[in-house]
Amino acid sequence: MTTANTNATTEAQIRALIDEWTKAFRAKDVNGVTSYYAADIVTFDLAPPLQYTGADALRKGLEEWFPTFRGPVGYEIRDLSITAGDDLAFSRSLNRIAGTRTDGEQTDVWVRSTACYRKIGGNWKITHEHVSVPFYMDGSYKAAVDLKP
Amino acid sequence: MTTANTNATTEAQIRALIDEWTKAFRAKDVNGVTSYYAADIVTFDLAPPLQYTGADALRKGLEEWFPTFRGPVGYEIRDLSITAGDDLAFSRSLNRIAGTRTDGEQTDVWVRSTACYRKIGGNWKITHEHVSVPFYMDGSYKAAVDLKP
Repeated sequence: MTTANTNATTEAQIRALIDEWTKAFRAKDVNGVTSYYAADIVTFDLAPPLQYTGADALRKGLEEWFPTFRGPVGYEIRDLSITAGDDLAFSRSLNRIAGTRTDGEQTDVWVRSTACYRKIGGNWKITHEHVSVPFYMDGSYKAAVDLKP
Repeated sequence: MTTANTNATTEAQIRALIDEWTKAFRAKDVNGVTSYYAADIVTFDLAPPLQYTGADALRKGLEEWFPTFRGPVGYEIRDLSITAGDDLAFSRSLNRIAGTRTDGEQTDVWVRSTACYRKIGGNWKITHEHVSVPFYMDGSYKAAVDLKP
C-alpha cells in the first residue's frame, strides 16, 4: 500500500471512508454504500452507458446488482494511493470483485478504481467514481477481465 | 460544459492545461503531451495491463500509438467538469478519439477520462489518469467502443 499524501488528517478520513464503504459493499448494504456518495455523483461504471448521473441511478444499479450474488460480495483493495488536500481528495486502487452468483457462475475480476472526493457540509463525499477494466487491442475488443495485478 | 469549481483561479489553470494537452495530443507531439505528467504518473489506460507506472511507460505508449494514425489525431472533449482546490484538482470528461489509421481503419470511439492533478514545484501536473470504455454484460464481454454521449 503506497500513499502520496498532502494532508495526513484528511488522508486518514478518506481511508476510514474507504474502509466503511468496503464493509457496506461486502455486506450488500445499499443504504450504507450510497451514504458515501454526493447527490450529484457522476459514475463511469463497468457496464454501459458511458456515464451514470446522480445517486439515485447508482442506488438503482446496486439494488439490481447486489442480489445477483449468493451471500456477501468478495471485495479486496490493493495498491491504494490516496492524495488528500483540505477539501478535495482523490484515490486510486486495484480492486478485486469475487463471489458466486445466484446462477452458479464464479465471478473473480480485478478492476481499476479511481474515486474523487469533496468535503460537503463537513463530510467527505465521493463526487466522481471511475471503475473499469482495459480491453484487448488484438481485434477481439474483449474486455480484459482475466488480468491480475 | 459544466463546472464544479472550488477555486476559480486554479480551475482556469487546469482548463488551460487541458487545452494545451489536447493541442499537443492532436499534433502527436510526444514531448508536449508528456510535459503535463508527473514523473510518477500512474495510468489506467484503454489497453492492458491494469496499470502503467511512470512517465517513461506513458511516453513509450504514445511513441508506439501516435504513428498508427495518418495525420493528426481527432480529439474532442465533452461534458468536462473540473474540481479545483489550492494544490489538488480532478477532472472528468467524455472524449472522442477519431482518425484514420495507417492500415486504413477508421477509429471513432468515445472514452471516459478522469484526470487527477497536483501542483508540483509551482506547476500543475497530472499524477493519475484513468481512460476507459465500459463493456457489455451480455456474456460477450465486448468493450463498448460504439457508445455515443
